[in-house]
Amino acid sequence: MSYDQNNIFAKILRGEIPCKKVYEDDHVLAFDDIHPQRKVHTLIIPKSAYTDMSIMGDDAKDAEIVALIRAVPKVAEAKGVKESGYRIIINCGVHGGQEVPHLHLHLLGGETVGRMTA
Amino acid sequence: MSYDQNNIFAKILRGEIPCKKVYEDDHVLAFDDIHPQRKVHTLIIPKSAYTDMSIMGDDAKDAEIVALIRAVPKVAEAKGVKESGYRIIINCGVHGGQEVPHLHLHLLGGETVGRMTA
Repeated sequence: MSYDQNNIFAKILRGEIPCKKVYEDDHVLAFDDIHPQRKVHTLIIPKSAYTDMSIMGDDAKDAEIVALIRAVPKVAEAKGVKESGYRIIINCGVHGGQEVPHLHLHLLGGETVGRMTA
Repeated sequence: MSYDQNNIFAKILRGEIPCKKVYEDDHVLAFDDIHPQRKVHTLIIPKSAYTDMSIMGDDAKDAEIVALIRAVPKVAEAKGVKESGYRIIINCGVHGGQEVPHLHLHLLGGETVGRMTA
């Protein structure tokens, strides 16, 4: 999967499409999914144009990785699910069911998320 | 959810229970799940006694976070799914369906993983 500058998250990062922002710092943006699959469904993305997790072996800087992961409990707290629990899902490539070619973490919660795989 | 020194992953880390090791470095151990839900199902865990992702806001050191995430593409490559794709799932707390109180990333692949949530 190659990076496409016209994917929806790239457009959100450029401000061409609005989003309901939950959290932002120098490296990370988090916003609510427009088609939530649970009561809480927030997406956490790096600002850099990374396609998927494979980039973590090469191009991504340590500071970007740390910011992305440290954003998870911040988003969980902002959405009120830090104590009740949540699931992080990262789909990579075809078998993972990745739909948008910009790395994104799904944070799902607010209710029991259910079985791990369908 | 509080840390329990007798959880199965703590026992694996202490060598009290064997595992089919896939990858290891100073901060991380990866091994195949004993009840695989897909053709490839490997668990990636920090060696430190972290319960869940909430720790990423506080105690976890940057080097531990970086090692954990950079292990993902290494494990994907070792398991032969880096190109075909995979899904990372991290269950945190009750709503996330977390079963073992030691932070762990599921890496699922080798075939289409299916819908994101059941």
